[in-house]
Amino acid sequence: MAKIEEIRHSLAHLLAAAVQKHFPKTKLGMGPAIENGFYYDFLFEKPISEKDLKKLEEEMRNLISQNLPFERQIWSYKKAKEFFKDQFFKLELIEEKSDKKTIQIYKTGNFFDFCKGGHVKNTKEINPDAFCLQRIAGAYWKGNEKNQMLTRIYGLAFKTKKELEDFLEQQKQIEKNDHRKIGAQQELFFFHEMVGPGLVLWLPKGTIIRQELEKWAVTTEKKWGYLRVATPHVAKEELFKTSGHLPYYQDAMYPKMVLDDAVYYLKAMNCPMHHLIFKAKPRSYKELPLRLAEYGDDYRYEKSGELFGLMRVRGMRMNDAHIYCTKEQAIEEFVNVIKLHQYYYEKLGIKNYYMELSLRDPKKKKKYLGSEKMWQDAEDFMKRAMEKSNVPYVVTQEGAAFYGPKIDFQIKSAIGRIFTASTNQIDFFMAERFDLEYTDKNGLKKRPVIIHRAPLGTHERFIGFLIEHFKGSFPVWLAPEQVWVLPISQKHLTFAKKIVAELFEKEIRVVLKPEEQTLPKRIKEGIEQKIPYLIIIGDKEVKENIISVRQRGNAKTVSIPFSNFLQKISKEIQEKTLSLETL
Amino acid sequence: MAKIEEIRHSLAHLLAAAVQKHFPKTKLGMGPAIENGFYYDFLFEKPISEKDLKKLEEEMRNLISQNLPFERQIWSYKKAKEFFKDQFFKLELIEEKSDKKTIQIYKTGNFFDFCKGGHVKNTKEINPDAFCLQRIAGAYWKGNEKNQMLTRIYGLAFKTKKELEDFLEQQKQIEKNDHRKIGAQQELFFFHEMVGPGLVLWLPKGTIIRQELEKWAVTTEKKWGYLRVATPHVAKEELFKTSGHLPYYQDAMYPKMVLDDAVYYLKAMNCPMHHLIFKAKPRSYKELPLRLAEYGDDYRYEKSGELFGLMRVRGMRMNDAHIYCTKEQAIEEFVNVIKLHQYYYEKLGIKNYYMELSLRDPKKKKKYLGSEKMWQDAEDFMKRAMEKSNVPYVVTQEGAAFYGPKIDFQIKSAIGRIFTASTNQIDFFMAERFDLEYTDKNGLKKRPVIIHRAPLGTHERFIGFLIEHFKGSFPVWLAPEQVWVLPISQKHLTFAKKIVAELFEKEIRVVLKPEEQTLPKRIKEGIEQKIPYLIIIGDKEVKENIISVRQRGNAKTVSIPFSNFLQKISKEIQEKTLSLETL
Repeated sequence: MAKIEEIRHSLAHLLAAAVQKHFPKTKLGMGPAIENGFYYDFLFEKPISEKDLKKLEEEMRNLISQNLPFERQIWSYKKAKEFFKDQFFKLELIEEKSDKKTIQIYKTGNFFDFCKGGHVKNTKEINPDAFCLQRIAGAYWKGNEKNQMLTRIYGLAFKTKKELEDFLEQQKQIEKNDHRKIGAQQELFFFHEMVGPGLVLWLPKGTIIRQELEKWAVTTEKKWGYLRVATPHVAKEELFKTSGHLPYYQDAMYPKMVLDDAVYYLKAMNCPMHHLIFKAKPRSYKELPLRLAEYGDDYRYEKSGELFGLMRVRGMRMNDAHIYCTKEQAIEEFVNVIKLHQYYYEKLGIKNYYMELSLRDPKKKKKYLGSEKMWQDAEDFMKRAMEKSNVPYVVTQEGAAFYGPKIDFQIKSAIGRIFTASTNQIDFFMAERFDLEYTDKNGLKKRPVIIHRAPLGTHERFIGFLIEHFKGSFPVWLAPEQVWVLPISQKHLTFAKKIVAELFEKEIRVVLKPEEQTLPKRIKEGIEQKIPYLIIIGDKEVKENIISVRQRGNAKTVSIPFSNFLQKISKEIQEKTLSLETL
Repeated sequence: MAKIEEIRHSLAHLLAAAVQKHFPKTKLGMGPAIENGFYYDFLFEKPISEKDLKKLEEEMRNLISQNLPFERQIWSYKKAKEFFKDQFFKLELIEEKSDKKTIQIYKTGNFFDFCKGGHVKNTKEINPDAFCLQRIAGAYWKGNEKNQMLTRIYGLAFKTKKELEDFLEQQKQIEKNDHRKIGAQQELFFFHEMVGPGLVLWLPKGTIIRQELEKWAVTTEKKWGYLRVATPHVAKEELFKTSGHLPYYQDAMYPKMVLDDAVYYLKAMNCPMHHLIFKAKPRSYKELPLRLAEYGDDYRYEKSGELFGLMRVRGMRMNDAHIYCTKEQAIEEFVNVIKLHQYYYEKLGIKNYYMELSLRDPKKKKKYLGSEKMWQDAEDFMKRAMEKSNVPYVVTQEGAAFYGPKIDFQIKSAIGRIFTASTNQIDFFMAERFDLEYTDKNGLKKRPVIIHRAPLGTHERFIGFLIEHFKGSFPVWLAPEQVWVLPISQKHLTFAKKIVAELFEKEIRVVLKPEEQTLPKRIKEGIEQKIPYLIIIGDKEVKENIISVRQRGNAKTVSIPFSNFLQKISKEIQEKTLSLETL
């Protein structure tokens, strides 16, 4: 049975064949298989539009139905140059990539392409209902912006129709629940040209989510034995030279500020500051593990093309901490860090996650600092901790930090996007670099092991993730607005205000939506804004001293005494309940 | 009766006379009256030490007892130059400051000085018990670091012995309770050479004070109708050009960072960011007053010589907010801002405060932006609000911000130091500059008035102030460690741990001080660390299931059931009680 990559690559050829039939003057670029499908780059004589894609799709299905073989041929270099003489992109590739003696060609029907292969044997192996042409985009020839701009046609392709439909449905979900879209709808955050790309301005409602997350982390981590500290956002270059961030991480840092007394940098990480706090006084083994935590604001330079909503930014606030411990404590401490992740994830209903251990790229050893022994120890400790934790993990041979291997938690949201939520390390390196030490039981000086951890990642990425994960319907404790109170008309306003005041008094985030618009319109808006509870106040409610409540996701309106409602919502907030318990 | 400045200035002459007698080869610089006393600068042949001051003081008292007149004489320029030919500093002054015809000389006994005057008539007007020589310091001639370094002798002088004694006592208190000293003793914060001057690293205990203050402000201001936002620490220069900070405030800003897409700056103020948030969507009069609050981190460049512990720093976290309102709402809103100050101050026991309205320096109008009318309106509104508030105020003709007058709250700590705690403004300028507008009742576009306010100032200065104000004995709710539990011996450890666990469970900040040191030593340490409650656990406590409590400032130990103690301390924390209620 054909591999899916072979099907995708073959469809790219069929697309080119279809284009050649309908737009014969088109110049062909390249057409590989990619994740979920394929593409082909073309230089059209005239611009084509999305509606041309239908026609091309039909032609492709027509070719498939002819049960055409994919036939490998070996041509002489001369024959190939002659055949492709008008196809200058192909010609360029042939001149670059062949041995100038023979070249390999794939033939399908009367379509010939210079190709390294990887195809189905016959078009009958392709399911004509499991592919589609997706969209048109611009792409520079060979991806180089100095080259000509071509038209790229993207296609999706799977083995079965069901797979294609599932993928399309997931895409629709992703699009609908994209955190940037919901962020704008719910007025959570925005960016501004005058501030700069990747620098988030948090609106009042988004700030509530930040505050709630932070409060939760501070309370939780206090129970888990963390002490909190607070450190500056800038420091002299000397600090970052000591840590090695200069020059090993310099490309990701904001540029220097030259002051009269020294050169300063914005911090990209909080670790160097925490190391100084560890070093602020002589430490004894009795103080270990010493867990220093800070929601620290870091600034990192990302190319503007790589920025993506809240998911990839330049300014970030990180759920950071550094644990200073003995070598003997390190594995248990790290297992606890993994457990803390699990605790947070469970409370947030994140079920799909795994760890990824990133080691040195063996080809680029110059990118990394520290001895071979140090790298092996760190790798060994981290693997042992991962084994102990029972969380699934994978290992990749690249992506380590410059001072040691790292473990990323990869989490998958309800709509299927996967993101790196946090980066963690057992670090045998920095204590040496900062000359950190403690006195052990026998009065000897020893280096502490340092654990870097950030279970809730950065506010930016984590909230971006949560928006998509919850599709904008936050659990009550996180919802920026928890209750709307809707008086049906003017005469119900007094009673409505009393309800609002009582909820406000109990620190429930309540908004009065006065009777300026019709009730259905206000209810519709409340549903769109994913407000957990809409309280409706009319004649009956005023008369019987009750409230009518419409829960998010439930079209029914239930009448209950206010005190019952208060008890229920308070409990949900207190317990951080994920979904609303039906009234 | 002689003015105090005349007494002080005369004492400076007597000091110079005494120096001339005991160190005849000394060259004389200048000797003015200053706040609380006087100084005189000298170039000694050999360095002198603090113990020489006693000798000089005696000589000064000797001169006073001779009832010498201060006699004004007019000399010819030539005579003066001849007389002072070996006194090159005096000669320089004579050449610079006289009309080259005649010069004014003051004679006391056989001491002559070139002097503009302002003296007592006779030394008998000086109380010989109400002055002292205080200390020696280095000082450049004319304060210019390119000039020669001289020795400055400082003296204190008052009219009465009591005043001098009070002043010395206050100085002793200030020294003893200096926030830098207590900050080190209690491990609240520190600075580090590798981070840079004026950039505070908050240790875990200091961070608790920050957190508690911040939690209090956030909760309080929520009740007062503020919405919270969060904004980046850097922005493109365009933003600060729009606000006018560039170039009008540039000297106080950190230097630029040149990135590929623009020049960036660290923010020195949060206002420009908040204005963008106001502008993020169309605003209606129904939304006003819109109060946007943020504990914002700002960076300002202060010369390293002007930095002073937490009181004057380069990195600060500000209790900031901006109120956007109509012109009609502005005075009431500003009065409420003053009331919020009063609320905070009352809860903290700050009784000594006044407001200072700073207007434009009429001689330097170029330093300021905006129209004459705008300045007058702002001044008028602020005066009306101050009048309405019944808080005492003074007016000074300088010190306004570049975009409008400002009101500083000046607060005096229990040990007598006065600091500017917060700066507030009614701003008619920035809305124009940022093109901010709202739609009024009639559908017309109008500019909002902006109120800038920061009642709790910056964490840095305010906590510095509170350390001195409370002399390190924080109210329980602010105390970094609220309870220490001291088991007398090993066998009381289990019971002690149970008490610790229960307090921790109730979110009380408790520390177990195990039995490694003697009880008296641990109690002494607890007293030095100003811990509100020391709980002592011995045989009796374990047997009777009670605890023995020693309160801060009370040598008596009281035995009570644990539940009673828990109730009492919880109430004190909850109500933010200032002093401990005696057990």
